This record gives sequence, C-alpha cells and structure tokens, in this order.
Amino acid sequence: MEMYYDKLPKEYLFVEVGKKIRERKDVIDLSIGDVRLPLPKAVCEAGAVAARELASVDSFRGYPPESGFDFLLEAVKGYYAGRAELQTDEIFVSDGIKSELNMFLDLFCGAKVILPTPTYPAYVEANILKGNEIKYCSAPPAEKADLVILCSPDNPTGKVMTKAELCEWVRYCRSCNATLIFDAAYEAFADGAIRSIFEVDGARECAVEMCSLSKTAGFTGLRCGYTVICKENRLNPVWRRVKSCKCNGVSYVTQRMATCALTSALPEIRANISYYKKNAEILLDALDGADKCGGIFSPYIWLRCGEGGFERLLSFGVGVTPGVGFGEAGREYVRINSFCFRSEAIEAGKRLKDFVKSR
Amino acid sequence: MEMYYDKLPKEYLFVEVGKKIRERKDVIDLSIGDVRLPLPKAVCEAGAVAARELASVDSFRGYPPESGFDFLLEAVKGYYAGRAELQTDEIFVSDGIKSELNMFLDLFCGAKVILPTPTYPAYVEANILKGNEIKYCSAPPAEKADLVILCSPDNPTGKVMTKAELCEWVRYCRSCNATLIFDAAYEAFADGAIRSIFEVDGARECAVEMCSLSKTAGFTGLRCGYTVICKENRLNPVWRRVKSCKCNGVSYVTQRMATCALTSALPEIRANISYYKKNAEILLDALDGADKCGGIFSPYIWLRCGEGGFERLLSFGVGVTPGVGFGEAGREYVRINSFCFRSEAIEAGKRLKDFVKSR
Repeated sequence: MEMYYDKLPKEYLFVEVGKKIRERKDVIDLSIGDVRLPLPKAVCEAGAVAARELASVDSFRGYPPESGFDFLLEAVKGYYAGRAELQTDEIFVSDGIKSELNMFLDLFCGAKVILPTPTYPAYVEANILKGNEIKYCSAPPAEKADLVILCSPDNPTGKVMTKAELCEWVRYCRSCNATLIFDAAYEAFADGAIRSIFEVDGARECAVEMCSLSKTAGFTGLRCGYTVICKENRLNPVWRRVKSCKCNGVSYVTQRMATCALTSALPEIRANISYYKKNAEILLDALDGADKCGGIFSPYIWLRCGEGGFERLLSFGVGVTPGVGFGEAGREYVRINSFCFRSEAIEAGKRLKDFVKSR
Repeated sequence: MEMYYDKLPKEYLFVEVGKKIRERKDVIDLSIGDVRLPLPKAVCEAGAVAARELASVDSFRGYPPESGFDFLLEAVKGYYAGRAELQTDEIFVSDGIKSELNMFLDLFCGAKVILPTPTYPAYVEANILKGNEIKYCSAPPAEKADLVILCSPDNPTGKVMTKAELCEWVRYCRSCNATLIFDAAYEAFADGAIRSIFEVDGARECAVEMCSLSKTAGFTGLRCGYTVICKENRLNPVWRRVKSCKCNGVSYVTQRMATCALTSALPEIRANISYYKKNAEILLDALDGADKCGGIFSPYIWLRCGEGGFERLLSFGVGVTPGVGFGEAGREYVRINSFCFRSEAIEAGKRLKDFVKSR
C-alpha cells in the first residue's frame, strides 16, 4: 500500500500562516484570500426561498443531478456568452476547485504533471496524493507530460497569461496528448484580458477549465464552482461517468443562489469585484518603486522583498503570505491580497509605504 | 500513468436503473433510495435565516472551517450522547459519504480491501479508482487486509450486524492493523440495535465511522454528513491534515440546517424515519411467505426472487433495484426500498402480494 500522505508537508500553508497572524493584534490581514463583502440581497433571498421550498411536498427536492441543475447550467452558459459558446452538457457543477481538482486527479494516477512555478500549494499536494511526478515549468518543456495545470490570473503572482502564451501551451498539450487544467478562479478580475482557455483555438480538444464562485461571487462560505469540458475532449463522458460514483452533487439551495449570482445579481457581483480591484490599486500605488507584479487583473500582488519578508511586514502591521509557501521560486517574495475593506486597504497602503521607505 | 477509470463498469448502476423505470408509466418507483418527505419547517427556516445573514457585513461568513463549524460539531456530539462519548475534534463534517469515502481512500492507494458481499457499488468503484485489490468476505478471513468496509444497517440487504459480529471485525482489524470504515448511513433506522461502531469495545483505535444526514434527516438535496475518527486512531491527525488540502468544507447554510435537524427538529426528523419504517412494515407484510430479509432496522428489503426479478416486478408495476448490481451474490435478489409515500407503499404492497402469489 502506498502512503502518499506521508509525503505531504506537516501543515497546509494557509493554516500555518493564519495561526501566526492571529497571534498578533493590530495587524491588517492580507494573507488568506477570503472575501469580506456580503452577498447581494437578491442572492440571499434566492437561498431563503430555496430553503423554504424544501418544507413542502410539492417543492421538495432530493438528490441533485450529479452534474448540476439545468437552471444553473444555463446560467453558466449565459455567463460565458460572447467569450466561449458552451453547451450545458459541457458544464459540470462542483463544490469548488479544490475538491474538484482532487477528484479529477483520480483520472491521472502516476502521471507526469507540469505545474507553474511558483505554484498554489493545493496543486502540489493533490498530485503528491496520487503519486504523480511533478515538474515545474514556466514554458512548455521539450519532454512530454500527461497533464499541465495553469492558473490565470495566477495565484500567487497575480499575472495574467497572454493569448500567445496560452496558445503555446495548448499546442504543446495537443502535440503530446496531454490534458490542460486551466484554473480560472480569478477570471472575474481579468476583464479586458483572456478569462477563459476556450478563447484560445484548439483548447476545446485538450482543456479542462475549473472555475469557482468563491472569488467571482463571494461564495467562499457556500461552496460552488463549475468545470467545463467540451465535447471534443475525450474526457467529457469519462468525467460524467466518474463523477456519478464520486459525489452526489451540490446543494439545491446553493445552486439557486449561484444561479441568481450569475444572472440577475451580476451587476452587484461585478461591483464587488470592482471594489476589490480598487483596493489592489491603492496597495499598488503604495508599493510604488518596489519590485512587484499582479494587482491589475488580479486581487493578488506579488512583492519581492527578500527573505524574511513575511516577518518584516508583520512588524509593520501587515499580514501577508510568505512566497516560499508557493515553492522555492517564491522564497524572496510575499503575496498580498486585496480582499479587505476599503479602510483597511488605505491603512495597509500607509504601512506598506513605510515598509518600502524603510528598505 | 494508470487509467483505473477504464476498469469501471460502463454506467453507474443507479443511473441505468432509473432510466429503465422512467420509461414506464404507472410504475411505483422503489428503486433509488431517495427520500420523499419534506424537511421540518424549522430546518428550512434555519436555512433561510442563515442565507440572509450572508447579506450583511456583520454576519457574513467566508470559508467554513474544513472540519465543520463548532455549532454542528457540538450538535453531532449531542446526537451521539448515550451511545458513544465523542469530542468535537473527533468529528469531521462532510458533504456526504460518497465523496468523503472517495477522498478518504486517498489514504489507501494500492491497498488490500475487504468489502461485504453483496456490496454497495460505490465502494467497489471508489476502490477501483485507487487501484486497490478487492476481496469480498462476509466474515473476517485468515489473511491480512489494510482496510475493511462494513455497512450496517446494510445497503442492500437491510441486515443489521450484531454486536458479536462487529466485535469479531474489530478484533480482526486490530490484529492486522487494518482500518475499519463503518458506513452508518442508515443508523437512524436501527433504534434498538447497534447504531455506531463505537458502541463496540476497541473500535476507537481502528474504526472510521461515516454518517450522512441524507437518510437520517432527509438531506439528500442538501449534502451534509460527518465522519468520526477518535483520538486513539492514528488517522485522526492524518485526516485533519489531508482534508485541509482536499476541500474547503461545507456550506454555512447547510451546516445551520443540519444543526437544527440534529437538535430542535430531532422529534420531527424521527417522525419521518418512523413513517418510512411503517412503509417497510407494509411492504414486508405484503411479502409474507417470500424469501427476504431487512425492512426492520432498515428502509431496505432484500427479496430473493430468482434471475430476471427486476423485469418481472416491473411488469407488476413495481420498480426495484436488480440485486446483481450489488455483485454476483445478488444475482437472484432485488432491493426494495420504503422511501415512498404511504399511499404508494399500500398500492405497492398489493402489487407485491400479486407478484408473490403468481410464483
């Protein structure tokens, strides 16, 4: 028996960082990327109505369809309109990318996997648990792989990939029959850039796009996402089959709330995204002159500040995520996120200015 | 790369059976075990309140704790009181047994696994996807195993295991350092029999109990369950660690509804269970003289009626699940469930009587 879990780091990065930050008072926490703004009233009302429906015989609902209710599949399809033309049987509702990715990797046991560098640690750990061979690359390598995972807008660097870069990866995956998992958790921040891998020619055949309403619509507490696998991809029927033995779908109440978020409440959802983007702008301004990227099409700013940056920023009253948690390539960096209230962004901006000056 | 999914049967049993039954009119569907009674009003109201809390800054909730909110952990602990003394850090909230089992089996890749015979197909498929070696046993074998999965009250046979039988399995698991997964999805039907593996001495060290609110509280549409791993079991910290990289917990709204179901709404929840048990009694009476088991501490009746029973019962207007779907040992059987309305149970009873007479 293989005990792959023995190969995991002792504690999951974000759990560890959270503990250290909570120990200190007067620290503005810009570490764990959890949203802060409440949900639009209409979304909550949709949830209340759905919950109450379950109290009468005529509107009670049992097991949800494994791949999602039609009303949510239609809403997702509509959300993509103008960017990619999808059919509802190319969309699979999930309870978020983390669990979806873990389940999906059951299709790739003992695989050769390419991950970005630096990289979101959940990718690494999910692959460790399958006994996969991991290679970190920032561009397509010479040798073949079974699976490539990309994230754009990227966590942690906040970078958004260009169409040319994505084309290169799609070409690579098609050349070696690899699957490309495209983590689009932050697509809502990338208006004006590429938001879906299906905006790239040839992606329908090889790509699997994983999205979440966590950041798009403030659903971290509700757990809802979706995965897109087009019919041209041989994994479409495979995933439908495997999903039926791996889970029983997502809560009816949650799916009603998600549907509202992606349709009638979309303007308010977008206003929340703009709010966080304004925070990022304030933080970026404060970091003027520092070596950084991200923060434009992304809630994340990736700041180079040498080793020990996490502790030094903590002494300035700003909690961030140490870059080394995203791999060796992040050793001299920290990740700063903009999921905070405006007043916090303004105060954190002042502290970051002092931090930059102090160096 | 291992493509274990190629080894799955073409379609998941229940999907296939559902299609065949839906093709016919005037059939009473006693196949897929989905609940029919609406939820208690208080449970739905708790959901509506929780959904609305998310609309204001002060009561908004982000990521839930991976292992569940304290209020639900306390409710589960209270639900066990008098049967087993648990601490809240021995309880892990899940979104149901199917996905929990699939995630948990990542701890057992390439393992030797003992399954009951006949067996719930989700166990088989989850193990196929890990490349595990499956052995079907109805009592502890001579050779060692890494993992044993038991289900009591059993799906599909409706049998409830005795304390003596469970003691034997616990002794076996401890003797070879195996983990015992105890699927207690139907424990609420077993009042008067053993409902938790932790009622058996020595289980705290080796057992992992998986429970669900699907059948206990009519939550099939809401997705909530929990897993119990005691501190004496070395897998308690392992599962806490692995869970943190595999999922982001269960919806706040769902957890509030579950808490209400296991506390203030418990009398109504129990009344629903009694309703289904009365249905089972009506069906059992109708099958008087037939070769059958279950239906007393379980919503399921396991009826021996020779090969082709599914089709013959369909011609009598009763939809059931063919036993062969639960393995070769079920070839001459069908599973009948009592999750229906009273009027359906009464009418199905008449049809089953005719069926028994016709043989």
